[in-house]
Amino acid sequence: MDRIDVGILGATGTVGQRLVRLLADHPWFHVSELAGSPESAGRTYAEGGGPDALDGVDEELGRRTLKDPEGEWQSGLLLSALPSGVAGPIEERLVGRGHLVVSNASSHRMDPDVPLIIPEINPDHLGITERQRERWSGTLITNPNCSVMGLALALAPLHRQFGVKAVQVTTLQSLSGAGRPGPSASEIVDNVLPHITGEEEKLAREPQKILGRFETGRGAVDAANFEVSAHVHRVPVRHGHLLAVSVALEEAAEMTRIEGALEGFTGARLDEALPSAPARPLRLVRDLQRPQPRLDRDRDGGMTVTIGRVRPCQVLDVKFTAVIHNLIRGAAGAALLNAELAHVTGFTSRGGPDDRP
Amino acid sequence: MDRIDVGILGATGTVGQRLVRLLADHPWFHVSELAGSPESAGRTYAEGGGPDALDGVDEELGRRTLKDPEGEWQSGLLLSALPSGVAGPIEERLVGRGHLVVSNASSHRMDPDVPLIIPEINPDHLGITERQRERWSGTLITNPNCSVMGLALALAPLHRQFGVKAVQVTTLQSLSGAGRPGPSASEIVDNVLPHITGEEEKLAREPQKILGRFETGRGAVDAANFEVSAHVHRVPVRHGHLLAVSVALEEAAEMTRIEGALEGFTGARLDEALPSAPARPLRLVRDLQRPQPRLDRDRDGGMTVTIGRVRPCQVLDVKFTAVIHNLIRGAAGAALLNAELAHVTGFTSRGGPDDRP
Amino acid sequence: MDRIDVGILGATGTVGQRLVRLLADHPWFHVSELAGSPESAGRTYAEGGGPDALDGVDEELGRRTLKDPEGEWQSGLLLSALPSGVAGPIEERLVGRGHLVVSNASSHRMDPDVPLIIPEINPDHLGITERQRERWSGTLITNPNCSVMGLALALAPLHRQFGVKAVQVTTLQSLSGAGRPGPSASEIVDNVLPHITGEEEKLAREPQKILGRFETGRGAVDAANFEVSAHVHRVPVRHGHLLAVSVALEEAAEMTRIEGALEGFTGARLDEALPSAPARPLRLVRDLQRPQPRLDRDRDGGMTVTIGRVRPCQVLDVKFTAVIHNLIRGAAGAALLNAELAHVTGFTSRGGPDDRP
Amino acid sequence: MDRIDVGILGATGTVGQRLVRLLADHPWFHVSELAGSPESAGRTYAEGGGPDALDGVDEELGRRTLKDPEGEWQSGLLLSALPSGVAGPIEERLVGRGHLVVSNASSHRMDPDVPLIIPEINPDHLGITERQRERWSGTLITNPNCSVMGLALALAPLHRQFGVKAVQVTTLQSLSGAGRPGPSASEIVDNVLPHITGEEEKLAREPQKILGRFETGRGAVDAANFEVSAHVHRVPVRHGHLLAVSVALEEAAEMTRIEGALEGFTGARLDEALPSAPARPLRLVRDLQRPQPRLDRDRDGGMTVTIGRVRPCQVLDVKFTAVIHNLIRGAAGAALLNAELAHVTGFTSRGGPDDRP
Repeated sequence: MDRIDVGILGATGTVGQRLVRLLADHPWFHVSELAGSPESAGRTYAEGGGPDALDGVDEELGRRTLKDPEGEWQSGLLLSALPSGVAGPIEERLVGRGHLVVSNASSHRMDPDVPLIIPEINPDHLGITERQRERWSGTLITNPNCSVMGLALALAPLHRQFGVKAVQVTTLQSLSGAGRPGPSASEIVDNVLPHITGEEEKLAREPQKILGRFETGRGAVDAANFEVSAHVHRVPVRHGHLLAVSVALEEAAEMTRIEGALEGFTGARLDEALPSAPARPLRLVRDLQRPQPRLDRDRDGGMTVTIGRVRPCQVLDVKFTAVIHNLIRGAAGAALLNAELAHVTGFTSRGGPDDRP
Repeated sequence: MDRIDVGILGATGTVGQRLVRLLADHPWFHVSELAGSPESAGRTYAEGGGPDALDGVDEELGRRTLKDPEGEWQSGLLLSALPSGVAGPIEERLVGRGHLVVSNASSHRMDPDVPLIIPEINPDHLGITERQRERWSGTLITNPNCSVMGLALALAPLHRQFGVKAVQVTTLQSLSGAGRPGPSASEIVDNVLPHITGEEEKLAREPQKILGRFETGRGAVDAANFEVSAHVHRVPVRHGHLLAVSVALEEAAEMTRIEGALEGFTGARLDEALPSAPARPLRLVRDLQRPQPRLDRDRDGGMTVTIGRVRPCQVLDVKFTAVIHNLIRGAAGAALLNAELAHVTGFTSRGGPDDRP
Repeated sequence: MDRIDVGILGATGTVGQRLVRLLADHPWFHVSELAGSPESAGRTYAEGGGPDALDGVDEELGRRTLKDPEGEWQSGLLLSALPSGVAGPIEERLVGRGHLVVSNASSHRMDPDVPLIIPEINPDHLGITERQRERWSGTLITNPNCSVMGLALALAPLHRQFGVKAVQVTTLQSLSGAGRPGPSASEIVDNVLPHITGEEEKLAREPQKILGRFETGRGAVDAANFEVSAHVHRVPVRHGHLLAVSVALEEAAEMTRIEGALEGFTGARLDEALPSAPARPLRLVRDLQRPQPRLDRDRDGGMTVTIGRVRPCQVLDVKFTAVIHNLIRGAAGAALLNAELAHVTGFTSRGGPDDRP
Repeated sequence: MDRIDVGILGATGTVGQRLVRLLADHPWFHVSELAGSPESAGRTYAEGGGPDALDGVDEELGRRTLKDPEGEWQSGLLLSALPSGVAGPIEERLVGRGHLVVSNASSHRMDPDVPLIIPEINPDHLGITERQRERWSGTLITNPNCSVMGLALALAPLHRQFGVKAVQVTTLQSLSGAGRPGPSASEIVDNVLPHITGEEEKLAREPQKILGRFETGRGAVDAANFEVSAHVHRVPVRHGHLLAVSVALEEAAEMTRIEGALEGFTGARLDEALPSAPARPLRLVRDLQRPQPRLDRDRDGGMTVTIGRVRPCQVLDVKFTAVIHNLIRGAAGAALLNAELAHVTGFTSRGGPDDRP
C-alpha cells in the first residue's frame, strides 16, 4: 500500500519532534515535508531540532532541509504542531489553499465551524466541517489542549452515564508542556509555579465543546452545559500532566458504578480501525499511590490516560486523579489520531492544495 | 528576666530540629532538656539529629545528651514534635504527670477537651482545657496539621466576613513535610506522588474545629459547619506547601471585598504580644506568578502565609493560591506560638510535674 | 530451539528487575526461577518488586512465587543480582553445589580464580575458572562494578595501542546505582553527595584485573600495571553514570590517533555471536555538549558507552568524558552478556546442581 | 562615619543582585547608583531584576531607577557584575575616566597590569596597578572566576608549605553560576551537562597568576609554575560549586601535615580588617559525607570554603573535595572583599571620575 505524504508544520518544536517520531514507521502516512519556524527554513531538521531531534528517527530524516512554513506544500495532508502564537494565520492560508490541516494549535479550536475532536468521544463532530466550505476550500480539524484531553477523556463516560454538572480541576503539569526552552532550572528546581498563561481558560471552555452534541440538522455542535473551574501549576516533572478532578453529577451514583463507567469506557467503535488508538483510552488503577506521572505516562505508548483514587468528594460528588502523557496523548498523538480518523472518513482523498492539477 | 525552661520531645526529627533552631535566641524560653526517640536516649543531639542538626545552633547544644522521652522531665513546659504514631501515649502520660504539653502531633487534636489553636484565630478555645481537669492534672494544647494551618489562616477572614459554605483544596506539599527520611529520590525525581496517608482526612476535619465557636457556658467548641474536600500531593520541593483553594461563601462578595478581607486580616490582638507572631499572618500578593514555594515560604521568618491569584471560581465562589512554610508556620513555629500564647495567658505558671514540691 | 532455564537471585532489586526485563524475550534463556531476599520468599514477584516490577514484563511473571535464595534451585545457570553484602556466602554455596553462577556482586571479583569478565575485552580470562575446580564443582563468573565497566571499556583500546600508565577519574553517578531505596529526596534535591562507600576502592583495583593478561601456563591473570585514582559523587540523575577521565599513556599519541583508537574499538570478535552485545561497545561523539546521561545512556539499548570531549590533558596526556547506563551495560546487561559468553563457550552444558542425575 | 558612595554595574543579574543584598547594611559602602544592561536603563531595579530582586533589600531600593551603564557615574567606586561578554569596553571607559572599578568580569583578569586579587592570598599584587597609569587615570581590580576562587584558596596553603607541581580538578557547578536564565529545566532535570564555555580555560590559567609572586622591582607578577587540568560540569544544584581536586606537591607530605596546612590557613593579616572577610577562608571537615553544596555553601555567610575528604591520591599526591558558594565567595562577596581591601589600602581616596572638581 502506498503511504500518504504528510507535511509537518512546527516540526522542530517539542510536539513536532514527537510527531516526527510517532510517524517514523506509520503504516499509512509518510513524512515528506518538514518545516520549523520561518527563520529555520533552509537548515536541516537536525540543526533546527537540537539535541533530541534524532532520537528514535532515521539519520536520513535529520538531513532533510526544513521548508518555509509559509511557502508551498506538496502534501495534501498537513499536521500542525505550530505554537498557537503563530499558527492562526499560517494555518488559515493553507486551509484556504485546499489543504487538510490537522492542528494541535489552539487558535481555531473554538471556531463554530472547526471540529475539536477526540476520536473516541466525538468523531461525528467532523460533520461541522461542511460549514468550512463557506470560507475555505480545505479543511481544518483540531485536537484539544493537553490537559483538556486528559480531563475530557475522563469526563466522557461520566457525562454519558450520569451527566456532568460541574468540574473542579487542579493540574500539576510537566516541563515538556511548556515547549522549548520552557522554564529555566533556576525557576523551578525546588519549586512549583502557580500560573500558565491561557491554560485555565482552555480548561474552562474546551471540554464542553468536545462533550457537546452534533445537531445534524443545523450542522452545528451544542456545547455541553457545565462549568469547569481550573487551578493550573507547572511542576519539575519531565513529561506527564497529573489532574486532580472533582465532579458534580446530574444523577447520583455509587463509587462502584462510577469506576465501572470509567473502566468500561471504550469510546466510538470507529477508533478500533485507527493504528494509533490505544486498546482503551482510559485505564483504572486501584493502587492508592497511583497514578504517578513517571510510572503511568507511558502506558500503551503514551496514548492511554490512567485514572486512580476514585472516591467520594465531600463538596461535589466524586473525585479522582488522572495522568496523561502531555506530548503523546495530549498533543502529537492526538493530532495523529485525528489525522487517522480524517483518513478513514475520507478527508484525505478530497484533494489537496488547489494549485495541483 | 529569667527564661523559662523548656523540654523538647522529638527534638531530632525534622520539626524538632526546627523548633530547637527557633528557640536558639528566644526571649522567654530556654531549651533545657531534649529527647528524640527512646532508642536515641544517651546519644548526643548532634549524633541523633544527623547532618543538619547543628545548622544555626550553638555547638554546645550539639553535645547535649538526649533524654529518654518516657523518663522524668524537669521542665514544666514541654514542646512535642513527636511523630503522631508514637505521640499519643507519651504525651498523655506527661500531661497526666502535670506538664503543660504543647504538641504538634495529630493524636489528640480532635479530642473535645483539647484545644486546636491558631493564636490569631481562636485563642479563646484555650477555655476548653478546663475540661481536661477531669482526666489530667496537666494541660495539652495542640496546633493543626501543616496544610490545615495554611488553609485555616486563609479561610478565617472569609469565614468571619462572608461565611464559608464549602471548600475544595488541592495541595502540592514539600519533601520536608514527610519527615526523615521521607520519599526516596528515586521515587520523586521527575515525578509527583498523589497520596499522603491521613492528610486528606485532616484537611477535612481540622479547619471546622479551628473556626468553630467556643461556647462559654458549655465550655465546649461548636465546630463550624462546612465541608472540605482535599486532593493532596507530594512534589519535589524542599520546603513550602502550596494550596490551590476554591471556596463557596454564605454571602456573595466582589473580589475586591474578598481581597480586602484577606489583606486586612490581623487576627486576635493578643498575638501582638507574642515574640514569634508575624506582623500579619497573611500577605496578599498581586503578581500573577506568585505565590511560589521557593520565593514565598520564608516571608517574615516563615511565619506568614502568602496568598495570591484571588479570582472568581466558576464552580464555587472564589479561588486563590496560598503558600505556607510547612516546618515553620505549619509546625515548629505553630507550636512555639502556642507555647507563647499559653505563657501570656498564665498556663506556664500553674506548676509542672506533680512530683515537684 | 529449547531455551535454557535460568534462575535469578536478587530479582526484586533494581538490578534484578532490570535483568528480568532484559530476559523477557531472550533467544537463549528463559527465566524459570526467581528469588529476592530470604524474607521475601513466598511472596509474588510483583509484591516483592514494588511499583516498577511489572514494567515491560508479562503479568504472568508478576504472579510467580519468589523462592528462598538459600534453597534448592533447578536451573543450572543462575544470574545473581544480589547486593554484595549478602552475595558472598550464598553464591559460594550454590557454586559449591555445581551451579554456574554469573554474578554482578563484588564479593568474589578479586579472587584469583574468579574471572572478572567484559566479553569484548578479556573473554580469555574465563580460563582461570579451571582453578575453581580446587574448591568448587560449579563455576563463578563476575562482571565489574558499574563505573569500572565504563572506565575499562574506554581504557581498553588505549591500553592496547598506547599503554596506560595512570588514570584519574571523577564520577557523577546516578540514583539507580544506589539501589532501593537509595538516597532520600531530602538529601539530594538541590545537592550532590561526595562519597559512595567502597566505590573508589573498586575503581582503584578492578580495571587492572580486567585489562590484565591471562598467562596460559600458570592459568592465572597478571594484572595490568597502572594506578587509578577516583573521586566519586552521587548526583540527582535517575540513570546513567558520567565519568570524567584523564589518562597518562606509555606512548605519546596525537588526539586524532586516540580518537581513532576509541572509535575503532570493537573488541573480541567473539561477542558478535552474543545476542546482547551492542554493535560497538564504544561510540565517539564530537558535539562539545555530549555525552549527557539523559541523552546518551540508552544508546544501543543501554549497552554502548558514549565517549566525547576527547582533548589533551595538561597534567596527564589525554582527557575525555564517558557516559554508561549503570543498570544495563554497568550491571544487568553486563551479567547477561557474561552468561551468553559462558553459554557459547560451553559452560552451560557442563551440568548443573550436583544433585541432578 | 560617612559611608562611601558605590555604583553597581550589572546590578540586575544574578551576581549583581547578590552584591546589592550584601551591601544592604554595609558599614563602609552605600549603594548610590545602579545599572543593569543598557536596555534596562530607566526601568526600576525591581522591574529589571525580576522576582528575586527585592529579597532581603529595602523596598526603597526596588524603586530606584536604573542608569545607563555607559552614561556618567557620580560614585568614584564602581563594582562591576557585568557579564564578561560586555564588561570589557564598558569597564575600560570607566577606568579611563578615573573610576576605581572592582570587577567580577573575566575580560581583564589576565592583563599584566591588572591585579587578580584574593585578599587572603595576594593583597600585595595591588602593586601592579602602578602600571595602569600608562593607560588609565583610574584603577581596575579583578577577582577570579567562581571555581578558581575555591581552587586557589585550597591551593594557597599547600603551595606555600609544600609547593604545587600539578593539579587535576573536576567541578560540579551549580545553576546560579550560569546567570539568568541559565539552563532550562528540560535540559538539566534528570541530567548533568559536561561542558561550560570558557570555564576549563579559566581554571587552567587564573590560579597561577593568583599564587604568583609580586616582583617589587619590576612591578610585575611572576605566575606560579604548575599546570591545572580541569573537567567542568553543570549539575542541578541551585547554589554551590563542588570541586574534586588532586594535587602533585613539590615536597612529599603526610596527610596530617596537609590537613594541618589547610586547617591553619588564615591568609594575610590584612583581611582581619575587612568587614566581609570570614573568620577563616577555609574550614576543614572530617565527616566522610561532607562537604556537600547544600549543607556547606552558606558557611560563614557563604564566604568560607569547606574542604573535606583529604586523602592520598594514587596518581598525584593528595586529593580532597571543596565546596564554595559560587555567588558569594565566588563572585559578589569576592568583589566586595576586594573593594574593602582597596578601601583600606587607600585606593578609594584617590579621587573618582576625572570630571569631578
